Amino acid sequence: MIDLSQADPAELRSMIRNAELIEPTAGMANGYAQANLAILKKEHAFDFLLFCQRNSKSCPLLDVTEIGSAIPAFAAPDGDIRTDIPKYRVYKRGELTDEVTDISKYWEEDMVGFLIGCSFTFEHALLNNDIPIRHIEEGCNVPMYKTNIPCMEAGIFHGKMVASMRPIPQKDVVRAVQVTSRFPAVHGGPIHIGDPEAIGVCNIDQPDFGDPVTVHQGEVPVFWACGVTPQSIAMETKPEIMITHAPGHMFITDIRDEKLGVL
Amino acid sequence: MIDLSQADPAELRSMIRNAELIEPTAGMANGYAQANLAILKKEHAFDFLLFCQRNSKSCPLLDVTEIGSAIPAFAAPDGDIRTDIPKYRVYKRGELTDEVTDISKYWEEDMVGFLIGCSFTFEHALLNNDIPIRHIEEGCNVPMYKTNIPCMEAGIFHGKMVASMRPIPQKDVVRAVQVTSRFPAVHGGPIHIGDPEAIGVCNIDQPDFGDPVTVHQGEVPVFWACGVTPQSIAMETKPEIMITHAPGHMFITDIRDEKLGVL
Repeated sequence: MIDLSQADPAELRSMIRNAELIEPTAGMANGYAQANLAILKKEHAFDFLLFCQRNSKSCPLLDVTEIGSAIPAFAAPDGDIRTDIPKYRVYKRGELTDEVTDISKYWEEDMVGFLIGCSFTFEHALLNNDIPIRHIEEGCNVPMYKTNIPCMEAGIFHGKMVASMRPIPQKDVVRAVQVTSRFPAVHGGPIHIGDPEAIGVCNIDQPDFGDPVTVHQGEVPVFWACGVTPQSIAMETKPEIMITHAPGHMFITDIRDEKLGVL
Repeated sequence: MIDLSQADPAELRSMIRNAELIEPTAGMANGYAQANLAILKKEHAFDFLLFCQRNSKSCPLLDVTEIGSAIPAFAAPDGDIRTDIPKYRVYKRGELTDEVTDISKYWEEDMVGFLIGCSFTFEHALLNNDIPIRHIEEGCNVPMYKTNIPCMEAGIFHGKMVASMRPIPQKDVVRAVQVTSRFPAVHGGPIHIGDPEAIGVCNIDQPDFGDPVTVHQGEVPVFWACGVTPQSIAMETKPEIMITHAPGHMFITDIRDEKLGVL
């Protein structure tokens, strides 16, 4: 496999667009922010924008396209959200109906795309602080869980927060809070430290999305709000159509990670 | 004058609602966030929400009401944005047409209220760091200027950023950046340090809003994005109707200042 960690975001988007790269984007274009995607029709765009504003831990917005435009003018002016993600999921009335590598055939003239910050940015920051990331060590997707934490409703949108989990050594937990709090645009500080059951996660070995990872003796499960929350919300809210990225298959932006740090 | 610095937000809102208090709200309910207000009809709500998302330095959202509801459910569940501000401004097609203490007669069933963070929160933080605030010392309103910095457009909304200015002693400038950067929800770190002309402010003694203040020898003018930006935008964009607070006359929320700190 070619090492794409130092590749340019525009180059990667072009490869993805030409179907030369169909795989999870973790570890690609290091130093550049990647984004979750949600696409909705205009009739639901205000409600969803409000949902993101009210639930900014789960849905911190990096960019929103103009109505009918597939170009994220701020995050990647030469990008196209219809083609530049390796794998998409199409939800119709809350049901996952299709998984495709290009959504051009689903695109409508009144659609709006929402690019939502992704934890890859703060994972780099954790690694730079010598805090281990288990799912990277184990070469799998981060485990994600439906919690019992209600999102704040906005119009039709309601449901529970999805959280990702990283086992953190006891001695590093405080530093992990500090490091990730610098980046509110990519979920910021954790939403929970410790006992999974306290947030409704009954079996840490059975994530609802992604893969299970090992929690070693002396490690604490630490949970962050997750950009897969909109997919869970879509399943509950059942809009006529909602298109998202497939978990782990993100939109690679031109935004430098460090520019998202508030301090 | 009664000292209202320790008064309860709900009590103050009630006094304002009953027209027992018609004055600028600076220095009231210390420790609680105050908010700028912008009210628009539903047809412009998505564009304006997007404008706020794209220009979060000027327009950091604390709360957005449901369409047709005057209750800011998050910021003050027992508040009413039609009555709880001491003085409002009504703009019709970009012209200031009225200044009133109650906008009930202007309220329509498809209006949406946007509460935008206000610099009072970070001013407390600066004072707690022994950094002087000149307009508080001189007992006047903060000086605000139309800059030459373009806001990012969103739908019909476009225009230049309005910035507030505080003269900061040389030795305190770095600390002022640190202290205010903790609070992105109330404009965060400065947008400019030093030479006013570099951001299109030609005469520091003639602010476009608020009052001029003294800049002493050895002090640097430091500029922060300002929640009056929407009023300037309204004058450029000319929506049919837009209602705002009058500068300095804010909505007092139940949100504790410290809860807005990201670290």
